[in-house]
Amino acid sequence: MDKGRLEAFSDGVLAIVITIMVLELSAPAEPTLAALKELIPTFLSYVLSFIFIGIYWNNHHHLFQAVEQVDGRILWANLHLLLWLSLVPFVTAWMGETEFAAWPVALYGLNLLLSAIAYYLLVRTLLARHGQDSVLANAVNRDIKGKLSLVIYATAVPLAFVSTWLAGGLYVLVAIIWLVPDRRIEDLLAK
Amino acid sequence: MDKGRLEAFSDGVLAIVITIMVLELSAPAEPTLAALKELIPTFLSYVLSFIFIGIYWNNHHHLFQAVEQVDGRILWANLHLLLWLSLVPFVTAWMGETEFAAWPVALYGLNLLLSAIAYYLLVRTLLARHGQDSVLANAVNRDIKGKLSLVIYATAVPLAFVSTWLAGGLYVLVAIIWLVPDRRIEDLLAK
Amino acid sequence: MDKGRLEAFSDGVLAIVITIMVLELSAPAEPTLAALKELIPTFLSYVLSFIFIGIYWNNHHHLFQAVEQVDGRILWANLHLLLWLSLVPFVTAWMGETEFAAWPVALYGLNLLLSAIAYYLLVRTLLARHGQDSVLANAVNRDIKGKLSLVIYATAVPLAFVSTWLAGGLYVLVAIIWLVPDRRIEDLLAK
Amino acid sequence: MDKGRLEAFSDGVLAIVITIMVLELSAPAEPTLAALKELIPTFLSYVLSFIFIGIYWNNHHHLFQAVEQVDGRILWANLHLLLWLSLVPFVTAWMGETEFAAWPVALYGLNLLLSAIAYYLLVRTLLARHGQDSVLANAVNRDIKGKLSLVIYATAVPLAFVSTWLAGGLYVLVAIIWLVPDRRIEDLLAK
Repeated sequence: MDKGRLEAFSDGVLAIVITIMVLELSAPAEPTLAALKELIPTFLSYVLSFIFIGIYWNNHHHLFQAVEQVDGRILWANLHLLLWLSLVPFVTAWMGETEFAAWPVALYGLNLLLSAIAYYLLVRTLLARHGQDSVLANAVNRDIKGKLSLVIYATAVPLAFVSTWLAGGLYVLVAIIWLVPDRRIEDLLAK
Repeated sequence: MDKGRLEAFSDGVLAIVITIMVLELSAPAEPTLAALKELIPTFLSYVLSFIFIGIYWNNHHHLFQAVEQVDGRILWANLHLLLWLSLVPFVTAWMGETEFAAWPVALYGLNLLLSAIAYYLLVRTLLARHGQDSVLANAVNRDIKGKLSLVIYATAVPLAFVSTWLAGGLYVLVAIIWLVPDRRIEDLLAK
Repeated sequence: MDKGRLEAFSDGVLAIVITIMVLELSAPAEPTLAALKELIPTFLSYVLSFIFIGIYWNNHHHLFQAVEQVDGRILWANLHLLLWLSLVPFVTAWMGETEFAAWPVALYGLNLLLSAIAYYLLVRTLLARHGQDSVLANAVNRDIKGKLSLVIYATAVPLAFVSTWLAGGLYVLVAIIWLVPDRRIEDLLAK
Repeated sequence: MDKGRLEAFSDGVLAIVITIMVLELSAPAEPTLAALKELIPTFLSYVLSFIFIGIYWNNHHHLFQAVEQVDGRILWANLHLLLWLSLVPFVTAWMGETEFAAWPVALYGLNLLLSAIAYYLLVRTLLARHGQDSVLANAVNRDIKGKLSLVIYATAVPLAFVSTWLAGGLYVLVAIIWLVPDRRIEDLLAK
């Protein structure tokens, strides 16, 4: 089976997810700076989610470059990931519109956690098909960032009920971890 | 004629259908768990439709791998399928927002039935072009799942007026039938 | 310059146009057959537009199979066509929601007319680049359907103010003309 | 790393951005010419943004034809551009619905300015990777239009508070500069 259509379909879904979030930023009725300021939480929430979807697209892109074969299990593991990512516009809107209230911030993190688990399961499914000696197995070897993200999300979700700033800060931290090139992180952890 | 653009266009439409459904999940005004709970029927309805579109994309993907030639008739048979699938977000929203009332549940099933008939017609149109000895003819041979789905949908639609739970349960049953790999189903039917 | 991305971008825009129209079909609050019946004009309007976008995608697909070279002029002639086609969801919604009132029906036809003119200009731009002896020139030779459509649209738009049924009937006629394979139409005109 | 998926993802995002803007053109309740006239500012705003997204897609298309290699930095520079372009539907709607009031017109220009800066940074990132002797370096050589656009946007944004017509006129000027083929502009500047 060919991986081309799986990549094209995933690109399509991620491109739509990253773009339709802007529909939640509805134009205010008043043409004033004050009206614009009220949108700041929604805008920040939008930018954060844009970066997360960008990270997933980046990682998906890298992951599938090493993929050689695709089967039914892999298609479904990929759709499972897309399901959670497709909910990002919903949790983004709720978090932004409620100005980062506790439940929405927790749900946002839970959705990120479920997406990260789905990504992990997709990698496992791919490895089961390609074997431990494949290019893929080497490419995803160790995956420090992935494991670290899971731990941070799992910590941040309950923390949202203590301090939404702390939880939000941890989400930003995960985004930064992924934006920083791999080598620097490994250097940092090696210290 | 080249099948590449037909696949790309279908992937595009299915990616959009599967993603815009989330726009029906509008963020509640209240940042509370109670507000979130009210969205549960809409969410369940969303997940069910996500799985159905996923199944169609999967099957479409498999079907067209065996396709060698495409003509005007096939383009239109494919667009006919996409027409019914494009209505999935509408029936999904109606079913979810009315908390699985009888008419919406029946219409949801009717739309699935019409999609399944359109898929059947697409396969027939492809077979008429490729002949009974083609790779395609072997690939779609028998198609137990397709026929079973048609029967279940046709049963579930009127049943929606007796019990929406029963009708909904039958839709879930069809989804499970497609998620289970072929061999296990054939083993089961062979008993 | 490569025609691949022009085709991919056009496919993307047309796939989105054909799919987001369904967002105008908003789920009624009441779970009744009566509520559903009120959507019939919007639904019919949707199906008509779905067929028109399908026809354009079909024709675009055929046209570009014969295209060998793409330049800046052609990219803009193509974007000009996509501009009018991107307005289809708007005119479709207005026509459907006003239950086929005179102005919306006329505007719908005007948009179809402008799309048809844009398509004609795209073909001219392509011919200017490829020359009269090219495969393309032979492929678009005569173009009875295109010219006939222009005449019918130009007739139907003013007629909308006399009888919306007549204008609507002419739009359906154009759709039928394109759905019927070429040879049969030529036979009919030869009589 | 392969540039194919970067192009496909960018095409997807731009196709969605250019198309979902039409969702802001909501069908008026009244089927009258007067109701339609009220939409003229929103429509003009839509057409202007359609042309700008078209220009970006065109330039992106040309730029990446000369690109040979893609890395993580380039993926992010590209996503940064897409972030600002994804906000175009929002600023377009605000500008149109407020009938070209000062703040919305200024924000529209600011968004164009940030998009232009992001495009400039993308070109720099690509050049850093490809070197000064590459095909790419020759292709983007001088870039009069890009620099001129930056200057005009930076002038137009504060001018919006003096005269929205002047600011709007400058945005249209930039669009015209890009629509006119390169050679003519260079001839004009050489005079």
